[in-house]
Amino acid sequence: MTDRRRVGTGPLVIIGGHEDKEGDRVILHEVARHLRGGRLVIATVASHQPDGYFAAYREAFTAIGVTDLVELYVEERSETHDEEKLRLFDGAGGVFFSGGDQLRISSQLGDTPVEQRVRAIHEAGGVIAGTSAGASAMSDTMLVRGSSRETHRIGDLHLAPGLGFVRDVIIDQHFAERGRIGRLLGAVAQNPRELGIGIDEDTAIVLRTDRFSVIGSGGVYVVDGGGVTHSNIAEAEPHRALSIHHVRLHVLGDGDGFDLLERRPAASGDVGAERPAEETAADRARHQDAAEL
Amino acid sequence: MTDRRRVGTGPLVIIGGHEDKEGDRVILHEVARHLRGGRLVIATVASHQPDGYFAAYREAFTAIGVTDLVELYVEERSETHDEEKLRLFDGAGGVFFSGGDQLRISSQLGDTPVEQRVRAIHEAGGVIAGTSAGASAMSDTMLVRGSSRETHRIGDLHLAPGLGFVRDVIIDQHFAERGRIGRLLGAVAQNPRELGIGIDEDTAIVLRTDRFSVIGSGGVYVVDGGGVTHSNIAEAEPHRALSIHHVRLHVLGDGDGFDLLERRPAASGDVGAERPAEETAADRARHQDAAEL
Repeated sequence: MTDRRRVGTGPLVIIGGHEDKEGDRVILHEVARHLRGGRLVIATVASHQPDGYFAAYREAFTAIGVTDLVELYVEERSETHDEEKLRLFDGAGGVFFSGGDQLRISSQLGDTPVEQRVRAIHEAGGVIAGTSAGASAMSDTMLVRGSSRETHRIGDLHLAPGLGFVRDVIIDQHFAERGRIGRLLGAVAQNPRELGIGIDEDTAIVLRTDRFSVIGSGGVYVVDGGGVTHSNIAEAEPHRALSIHHVRLHVLGDGDGFDLLERRPAASGDVGAERPAEETAADRARHQDAAEL
Repeated sequence: MTDRRRVGTGPLVIIGGHEDKEGDRVILHEVARHLRGGRLVIATVASHQPDGYFAAYREAFTAIGVTDLVELYVEERSETHDEEKLRLFDGAGGVFFSGGDQLRISSQLGDTPVEQRVRAIHEAGGVIAGTSAGASAMSDTMLVRGSSRETHRIGDLHLAPGLGFVRDVIIDQHFAERGRIGRLLGAVAQNPRELGIGIDEDTAIVLRTDRFSVIGSGGVYVVDGGGVTHSNIAEAEPHRALSIHHVRLHVLGDGDGFDLLERRPAASGDVGAERPAEETAADRARHQDAAEL
């Protein structure tokens, strides 16, 4: 049972995009503390134009004490065999996937030596983080395209196989900001085995084994279709609006936890066991900053 | 029990804004057929600048055979006693509240002779319709202001007493289009006795006694907080994101029904008993158009 959803053993930090890079940097601190002194590989492969991504992360991570950072960019799939690229992972304690197009991550890295290196780091206990497109790519089935800011139309959704670090969930990002509840409901309707997880900007889930906790300033929406009694997803014409009855919805904030196997929220003290129940991520960041002064 | 939620006896047509005025006009047809030959009063009072609203509705309703239309506008509350204004309701079979600011509807009409006339029409079986701000004003507690496109922040929500044609619900409009699930969840969290109903553009609920059916091109979101096990609405600081666990959510489309007392969706054949189960609103509009040719 314990491996039903998680393949590797390191933590996953799955971020809804636009994480704070200049203030408390709660989420980047979370990534940093899981590196255990190892190198951080910033994978900018999701971007068609990676210029600037690495510089911004180098500045933000350097400011919180992470100094061994390298950029992994892959223009073409053929480069994933280059020894030079593969040596970037030497001594790595984590990989951070930046934003862009999730289909670039899966199409360029899927079933390549680079992907094997990422997986090896994860299996050795390293942290795998992803923001925006990098968040979507974490699951075995990923949401690629679908309209925001409207009720889901039956025919308007594109899914693709992701990296598969977490199973049986579909992750969406920039969630409240882009009005994406409709498309996530549409994805869950296709097969309610998949749990929908919508993550706001500057918000992340930190996933270990089968539980995650929430950090950051926004919300995390969990869409559970297990009890759905009716949906028209397979019956209606492509332009029809989705109808789906008896969805269970949780909105989780900083400090809340969630058990993926039981499919239910957990009080903050129950999850991770790595932080006191009363201490929020913001508190922790402040303590950490104070300790670094 | 039967009067727990509904005060009057006529139907309510509650519209999420931007209803189709040029194509099939499914929603305007629905309003028209409940007039039973009576006059339609277009109440543009929600608008600070009503110019143009009435002309657009006159054109749209005239095209589907409603010819006795008058505009009710109230600049100042003192005008609600004018005999001239009150005579506008003579022979009326319905009142249609257009969009604007819901606080103008309640502050200008609340507890006035004009409001009494509207209520009398409703109690006599006339149709009361409202779109956008006019939709929000239908319930006893109405949502006035709150951020769209973000997870609800505890302190960021303004409610006010509405016209009270339907009790124990809070209505929001332009729902998916403006990403308003967050603020509706915030409103429901304040007191889960209130059922949240979010209506998309060009979509309406047609409410009779304790049941409604859905018509139009979008979706209707029903947020039921009855089973909520935890929320931080009363505990957290104003800037904190809302946390709320175990919400029940239904997304309803054209032809779906909902029972407000039982708080559950109903198959289309169960609701209203005024339309065959197999006939959608679009079908009906087509039949009606055909009959008018």
